[in-house]
Amino acid sequence: MKRRLLLVSNSTLHGGGYLGHCEKQIQEFFGENVKRILFVPDKLQSLGYAVDSIHETADPVEAVKKAEGIFIGGGNTFRLLKALYDHNLVPEIKRRVLQDGVPYMGSSAGTNVSTVSINTTNDMPIVYPPTLAAIGLVPFNINPHYLDPDPSSKHMGETREQRIQQYHEEPNTPSVLGLREGSMLLVEGQKATLLGTTKARLFARGKPATEYTPGSDLSFLLAEGV
Amino acid sequence: MKRRLLLVSNSTLHGGGYLGHCEKQIQEFFGENVKRILFVPDKLQSLGYAVDSIHETADPVEAVKKAEGIFIGGGNTFRLLKALYDHNLVPEIKRRVLQDGVPYMGSSAGTNVSTVSINTTNDMPIVYPPTLAAIGLVPFNINPHYLDPDPSSKHMGETREQRIQQYHEEPNTPSVLGLREGSMLLVEGQKATLLGTTKARLFARGKPATEYTPGSDLSFLLAEGV
Ligand SMILES: [Ca+2]
Ligand SMILES: [Ca+2]
Repeated sequence: MKRRLLLVSNSTLHGGGYLGHCEKQIQEFFGENVKRILFVPDKLQSLGYAVDSIHETADPVEAVKKAEGIFIGGGNTFRLLKALYDHNLVPEIKRRVLQDGVPYMGSSAGTNVSTVSINTTNDMPIVYPPTLAAIGLVPFNINPHYLDPDPSSKHMGETREQRIQQYHEEPNTPSVLGLREGSMLLVEGQKATLLGTTKARLFARGKPATEYTPGSDLSFLLAEGV
Repeated sequence: MKRRLLLVSNSTLHGGGYLGHCEKQIQEFFGENVKRILFVPDKLQSLGYAVDSIHETADPVEAVKKAEGIFIGGGNTFRLLKALYDHNLVPEIKRRVLQDGVPYMGSSAGTNVSTVSINTTNDMPIVYPPTLAAIGLVPFNINPHYLDPDPSSKHMGETREQRIQQYHEEPNTPSVLGLREGSMLLVEGQKATLLGTTKARLFARGKPATEYTPGSDLSFLLAEGV
């Protein structure tokens, strides 16, 4: 499996510019051979790569077939997933990434749609996609923008951890990697590594949550089922 | 239209017990003639009413047909809405409340499912309901646990207001009433009144948001379309 993924928690870190906190990782990830990146669907400020926005192409499936690299950014996860299905892009992106080894970078909503499903998005369900199943480039789920409970808060809404635990009350639900802002996951074939500056919190159904520091080998997550 | 609704933002207010902040409104709302309340689906601590939990009835549709009052509490909105459809309860609840005048009280997720749709829930989509359309007891949507942006926060996830604005980027979307914790909406036929101790924030598509203090007449929202 040629899979190469860079899955980022968030596009902008407090005090930095758009994708500023992961510039170095982006350049290492796409490297020198990729000259053009297919972007779905917002604007990507250039890091020296030419960017083709899928909104400007007449044939989005053809654009995926020809892409040297793919970047799916943030926005609303439900709207993004629905658009991917409406344009028949899900199987083609999956084929290009898993079979052809085209590097895929996701940020925020673009990270959600790369996983098994969007069951653990933070976004509001503003539209109704045909399914919550996503592209499935990895066999687990991610919660981007993962947020620790604020002990001083008087707000009574569920904490992020409680919301993920609700997900794991459902049968046969995969692990959920809580990527705090500033962290990202690099996948190269069967190897997964946590990058960035913040820890990640892993939730596995029926087990206590565990913390991983940047640099941790998370390859065991890739063996979960795919 | 006999509709009588009490739609609460949240079941527990910081520092208080379960439904403690709305005890008085509950007793005024159900009154003395209602002796038994049908509860869907968690536990309701008694305020002097007998409670029939729908999970313990063999025939949930029959339980709705016989209910003197209905209370739908919190939990996960997607799971709740899916359960309502799985048990064919949506049309029967709608009929009992709109035609028979059975009083309906919702809290948190139970408030979301009483509106047009669950498009503005805060919950994670842990299961896939057959539609996001909900019971439709009012012609607008509610965001319970509405939360103001925290100016000191470094978190880069969307604010609640931004999430509701994303919803209003979609065409033909109804107004969204942001009910802060501590506030509730009382509907009696064509009259709607804001109750509780906190203000509510109203979002109408293409218009600036507006604030309403407790006691405000919000009946104009009921004219929106139903
Ligand atoms: Ca988002
Ligand atoms: Ca909830």
